[in-house]
Amino acid sequence: MKIDIIENVMQYNSQEADLNRELFFNKKIFVINILSAPGAGKTSFIIENIKKLKGKIRTGVIEGDISSTHDSEKIKKYIENVVQINTGGTCHLNASMVAKAVEKINLSEIDLLFIENVGNLICPVGFDLGEDYRILLSSVSEGDDKPVKYPKAFVKTDMVILNKKDMMPYSDFNYCFFESKVKELNKSAGLITISCKTGEGIDYWLEILSSLIEAKKQNDLQL
Amino acid sequence: MKIDIIENVMQYNSQEADLNRELFFNKKIFVINILSAPGAGKTSFIIENIKKLKGKIRTGVIEGDISSTHDSEKIKKYIENVVQINTGGTCHLNASMVAKAVEKINLSEIDLLFIENVGNLICPVGFDLGEDYRILLSSVSEGDDKPVKYPKAFVKTDMVILNKKDMMPYSDFNYCFFESKVKELNKSAGLITISCKTGEGIDYWLEILSSLIEAKKQNDLQL
Repeated sequence: MKIDIIENVMQYNSQEADLNRELFFNKKIFVINILSAPGAGKTSFIIENIKKLKGKIRTGVIEGDISSTHDSEKIKKYIENVVQINTGGTCHLNASMVAKAVEKINLSEIDLLFIENVGNLICPVGFDLGEDYRILLSSVSEGDDKPVKYPKAFVKTDMVILNKKDMMPYSDFNYCFFESKVKELNKSAGLITISCKTGEGIDYWLEILSSLIEAKKQNDLQL
Repeated sequence: MKIDIIENVMQYNSQEADLNRELFFNKKIFVINILSAPGAGKTSFIIENIKKLKGKIRTGVIEGDISSTHDSEKIKKYIENVVQINTGGTCHLNASMVAKAVEKINLSEIDLLFIENVGNLICPVGFDLGEDYRILLSSVSEGDDKPVKYPKAFVKTDMVILNKKDMMPYSDFNYCFFESKVKELNKSAGLITISCKTGEGIDYWLEILSSLIEAKKQNDLQL
């Protein structure tokens, strides 16, 4: 009985996610869902993207939090199209929440939409939001054992970005261990290292992003 | 209807937690439930405690994780009484899980039990495990905005311990901001700063712990 309820919830979410995906497809928007533990640097990462993409790609952001507008206020300094979702107590975003938030964004004004999920390495994993691409942001200061402790988050992602590279000299983070565990779980995901503080690795990520957007455009033309 | 189900779950958990509490009372064990985000340093904190308490207070640990025995293996190097709970996918421990884990510990061999909850600042908050004392472990590298972003975790705790003080010189962590937000949410909770890496603040914490255990003993004698 319990399993039935969970299946129904997930089935409903998938249907809603497909509707979101269709909308994003029609509006030609590339959508990225970012997952991480609290404090890994999701907001800083989004801001670094916005700053560097200014004048080239028009960005929008959906901010997911339990409460507060703390992060969306930070982002609002750089762009207009920011919508805050406060889940109240729910530990993840779902596709319906995103559908409602999207209504408040002028979709003809953006090419790229970041969805910053609630800071949590467990609950958001199973919920498709209709995104094109999923990033798992891990950080050096969290330690190298996160793939071992939260494997599903690493399995269900297109890209693992390791942030806070600047912390490496002050940490006992074993990059080889981290990399091997990521690859054990997910052979197809990309893995790059960045520092939102120093800016290291951001340009490299933006090259990847640019090729992802281009590939999607080509793919869409064929549909 | 939904609310009813949630209430029943929480009511059942409270009853189970009370049974755990009664057992811990009868066995004269002081029990601490530790909550934090992934990678804040719960396991390191527990190990620092075990090392310093050796020969004075006999410690046991219940390790809560989604999967793996990564952390319990680390702790097993120092003490015998360690039990791993793998929740499968559940994002928090509950009182029943703890009750089952406790069956595997020889309670006459310990005075102090640490319960390391699943790394998550949201889901574990509402679940009483029958503990005497709750610690919320935050860390400098997560940033100073955690009380704003995850307020309930800070409201429902007896003590906020800020770990990774050694990261302070490499971070823009604003301690005054953090402290003021913690105090806004929870006037009665303690707030101390430590570094499990350098050992700073651990002795001070152990003085507090010693007085807590003593106070409980006195209180129990009066019951």
